[in-house]
Amino acid sequence: MQPRSEETRERILQSALKLFSEKGYSETGVAEICDASEVSKGAFYHHFPTKQAIFIELLEIWLKGVDAELAKAASRAQNVPEGLLAMAAETREVFSAADGRLNIFLEFWQQARKDPEIWKVFISPYRRYQEYFSTVVRKGIEEGSFRPLDPDLAGQALVALAVGIVIQGVLDPKGMPWDTVARDAVRLLIDGMARR
Amino acid sequence: MQPRSEETRERILQSALKLFSEKGYSETGVAEICDASEVSKGAFYHHFPTKQAIFIELLEIWLKGVDAELAKAASRAQNVPEGLLAMAAETREVFSAADGRLNIFLEFWQQARKDPEIWKVFISPYRRYQEYFSTVVRKGIEEGSFRPLDPDLAGQALVALAVGIVIQGVLDPKGMPWDTVARDAVRLLIDGMARR
Repeated sequence: MQPRSEETRERILQSALKLFSEKGYSETGVAEICDASEVSKGAFYHHFPTKQAIFIELLEIWLKGVDAELAKAASRAQNVPEGLLAMAAETREVFSAADGRLNIFLEFWQQARKDPEIWKVFISPYRRYQEYFSTVVRKGIEEGSFRPLDPDLAGQALVALAVGIVIQGVLDPKGMPWDTVARDAVRLLIDGMARR
Repeated sequence: MQPRSEETRERILQSALKLFSEKGYSETGVAEICDASEVSKGAFYHHFPTKQAIFIELLEIWLKGVDAELAKAASRAQNVPEGLLAMAAETREVFSAADGRLNIFLEFWQQARKDPEIWKVFISPYRRYQEYFSTVVRKGIEEGSFRPLDPDLAGQALVALAVGIVIQGVLDPKGMPWDTVARDAVRLLIDGMARR
């Protein structure tokens, strides 16, 4: 892509994210996104066939960021429990990026329940995280950090805990120091999985 | 309330729940609820000042049911860990009741972000569960089941796990046997809290 075209695309994404977060996804029209990002409708549709395509792109950008943080945290750790604790420590980053997006996410969730195509987009990163954490638990068993347990179930427990903490953090941002909660909750779960 | 009036109120609630689940909260009008429950607008407004009042009532009925299940599970248990596992085993009931309501819940969450009054209604049961599980953990420490740990943080971890599993179960109902996941995940967390 041309540098200028790339820059236009980026501007559209930024404006859309801002509008979706502030007004809601369904209440934001393509015309408004064009106004806010100062592009013509023609330029808009050159980059994105639909408003939905922007949402998917925003979701992917966010998840790529989360993936990169997780991979970085894991790579610096000596073993799986340390890696999981380092991932939990990244919660603050996830929250700061999640807040506006979660709003959009809620709207999309509702649409996903009606539309199988949106459903597939919606469910796939979530299934990917399930598999990722199953693999992490398997590695923890192999290295002797965890006792023999079902990696899929333990992976599920980790994903559930992460989902629950992110949801609570967005629901009630000032209710608790969420990064501390995340770290301590993951530590409890790790203790429960540890080799005796 | 007169028996007949009570029956009318119940019919309105049932019709509203069905319509909210199928069509969504914001896309259901009071007129439709009146049609479906075969009551006049006058009778409707005699029972509920607004559509929102119905939502709040439905939420409270559901949570009362959840509370009763939790209390029953806890009362039959010999100690706190057993009680928590018995609560996790009730997950199936929570799911079967949550599915339609979660849809409505998602819509309400979005509204809660814009309206401080709705926010208060929305956040209060959640805060109540936080306190409830802190108390449960405190009791577990006192009876010697758990090692000394911060009851608020451990209670948070339990709530996060529960929220995460309910969310995952509604997101992907056939993805995992959710009642097994709930029981095993809670068991891991209990093991992590146990006295060594």
